[in-house]
Amino acid sequence: MVYVAIMGHGVVGSGVAEVLLSHKESIARRAKEEIAIKYILDIREFPDSPYVEKFTKSFDDILQDEEVRVVAEVMGGVHPAYEFTKSCLEAGKSVVTSNKELVATKGAELLEIAREHNVNYLFEASVGGGIPIIRPISQCLAANEVIEVAGILNGTTNFILTKMIREKMGFEEALRLAQQLGYAERNPTADVEGLDAGRKISILASLCYGKHIYPDWVHTQGISGITLEDVAYASSWGGVIKLIGQVRRLEDDTLDITVEPMFIEQSSQLAGVDDVFNGILVKGDATGDVVFYGKGAGKLPTASAVVADVIDCVKHLKARKYLYWTDGTKDLVKPYEQTVYPVYLRLQAEDVPAALELVKTLLPQVKTLSRPQSPAGELAVMTGPVVVARQEEAVAALQEAGVKVLSKIRVAEF
Amino acid sequence: MVYVAIMGHGVVGSGVAEVLLSHKESIARRAKEEIAIKYILDIREFPDSPYVEKFTKSFDDILQDEEVRVVAEVMGGVHPAYEFTKSCLEAGKSVVTSNKELVATKGAELLEIAREHNVNYLFEASVGGGIPIIRPISQCLAANEVIEVAGILNGTTNFILTKMIREKMGFEEALRLAQQLGYAERNPTADVEGLDAGRKISILASLCYGKHIYPDWVHTQGISGITLEDVAYASSWGGVIKLIGQVRRLEDDTLDITVEPMFIEQSSQLAGVDDVFNGILVKGDATGDVVFYGKGAGKLPTASAVVADVIDCVKHLKARKYLYWTDGTKDLVKPYEQTVYPVYLRLQAEDVPAALELVKTLLPQVKTLSRPQSPAGELAVMTGPVVVARQEEAVAALQEAGVKVLSKIRVAEF
Repeated sequence: MVYVAIMGHGVVGSGVAEVLLSHKESIARRAKEEIAIKYILDIREFPDSPYVEKFTKSFDDILQDEEVRVVAEVMGGVHPAYEFTKSCLEAGKSVVTSNKELVATKGAELLEIAREHNVNYLFEASVGGGIPIIRPISQCLAANEVIEVAGILNGTTNFILTKMIREKMGFEEALRLAQQLGYAERNPTADVEGLDAGRKISILASLCYGKHIYPDWVHTQGISGITLEDVAYASSWGGVIKLIGQVRRLEDDTLDITVEPMFIEQSSQLAGVDDVFNGILVKGDATGDVVFYGKGAGKLPTASAVVADVIDCVKHLKARKYLYWTDGTKDLVKPYEQTVYPVYLRLQAEDVPAALELVKTLLPQVKTLSRPQSPAGELAVMTGPVVVARQEEAVAALQEAGVKVLSKIRVAEF
Repeated sequence: MVYVAIMGHGVVGSGVAEVLLSHKESIARRAKEEIAIKYILDIREFPDSPYVEKFTKSFDDILQDEEVRVVAEVMGGVHPAYEFTKSCLEAGKSVVTSNKELVATKGAELLEIAREHNVNYLFEASVGGGIPIIRPISQCLAANEVIEVAGILNGTTNFILTKMIREKMGFEEALRLAQQLGYAERNPTADVEGLDAGRKISILASLCYGKHIYPDWVHTQGISGITLEDVAYASSWGGVIKLIGQVRRLEDDTLDITVEPMFIEQSSQLAGVDDVFNGILVKGDATGDVVFYGKGAGKLPTASAVVADVIDCVKHLKARKYLYWTDGTKDLVKPYEQTVYPVYLRLQAEDVPAALELVKTLLPQVKTLSRPQSPAGELAVMTGPVVVARQEEAVAALQEAGVKVLSKIRVAEF
């Protein structure tokens, strides 16, 4: 019998307890040990829970109980999850988590503490909810150099964009609907402005390249500026706008790592990832493109990923899993203004032909786009790959010449 | 330093040697040990190979060398791969393989021998080439009961069907093109008649349900009977025809396991899996639908999956991986004539209205389908779910009444 503790009894935490109970037998078969919950840590009261006698408000109960070998941290947030995780690892307990914020900001440090104490720190549930992605990248794709990862990593923004694309719903209305359906929080900033996706691409980049890449180093832009006009141009061009977290290794061994809306072609495997689903494209040098698709959030999918990690810890109480990266430095990341990509621009000008001529002098391989019912004075173009610094100079020069730049959106190259 | 041997130097085997050499450093970092090839077994001569001094024609060199801890069996076929694998496992060497035929026919026995000798028998590359699927099912989805697996498991037939769907190319012409491009073998039976997909769904079913399900027990039907008329009806209906390997657990705990062409709706995540790509949908009770997509074959993708297993064996020279199933019995599989599904029929009749009336008396929830330029006397229908035995009675009754049954194709329910 192996005893586990669950820290946090919110959506994911209560799901973890539920899955451990409802799948008790098959889990025991797979872990080769029975797994029992000994404590559930939460400051709230749950008098009607089937686990009522397991609740504690004191973290020390868990820390000081040597029988507890594995702890599931599903509290969320950095504090006190960080301190609790650190103490558990130092006490020789393995920790599994769905806490992307903690892994993204303290992963290297916690992995090092786990290594020193010969225990495991696993976080399959931190990216992609129930979609297996951390383990496939670290194990199945171990014989590859990962060249690029590009993913739709946030279900809330993907739901909003899907409504804008399919039903021509405006951003604000789609956001309200997402809130009504419980997909978006009352304060939707972390989702809508790309912070959540930024944490996830940080974790994936750290895993692929072996060095911690912090979310602060990721150029992050959300979807609040996306308009139905941009969606219509993407559609006429033969594609869609998606919020993409992307990391790619450049020739000089630095990383181009960003979260931003992108035009992606309809033929891309990510174009069909709609609603609250997530999809993650991993390009390995040997394996080619591999795509993982599924529900990126939700109580049971996320809980089942946490429990899979619990099982893995129980199977590896003696042998440590090799999931590890060291601390990184900011010079691993290419400064955003030096990154190179094709770009879409939507402009407003009194003299459209003159504006087009000007754009052509400023940017390479300019092609015009069209959309039904575009108003007079509107001009949309797509360029070839061009460095961001030059894009910004072009925008300044256009504004200078009285041409309004209404939108500027990256065009994906995967 | 850990020494490995590679048995077979064909497409996959030479890829394994190439990946082990080209990724030497990153593999060593991940395996925490340097990995070196000591022998390559092949009866042919490769005087120009960079590994020329490693070649041997004698299996005993490998078997008797205690330094060889891991053996990659990439010979294909059951004999002598079976005897060699058995001997290696009995000698305490771990074996990894891409050999789906061997795993599908001898998996339970070889897994048991591996268990007895405390070594690993791993076969990530046997299904889906470079797509991680064996490990995600056995580990990441460990906290789930798998309800259903449905996959496009064979790239050759998927290429042929894609040409039929997109370019209205007939089956024979598409097959010839696949042969010209090297996607299909000169004798294409194993691919075209579904045997290859049958082996793969056998392996996935055994893995999900813990009991060996042999390919002989899988109702297997290929795509040689699919016509452009059927493709056109599928398109009008809003879908495509794909060759699907499927296993689902029924309420009485038997398995519905088949390989057959199916009508699938355009909205299904498998509908967009085209050309030589594979896609595998796994439905877990907690995690919901998870889809894995990528290149299902090819030298480097498959080789990289074999090497990932080599790395895993090296990391687990002492602790065994828990990848195991026991032998199964045929009564685990629901007899095909007792399985229930909706079906599409294409008929030819002199009196179409009378034929339609007759179909309605024989089968439930009959709806007619249409296609552009259908000839006089053609009738296509789709039914509700109905047991195969009754479908077959209906076909007999229709033929009896002078109505020709031109096609009968399953309609997918995922």
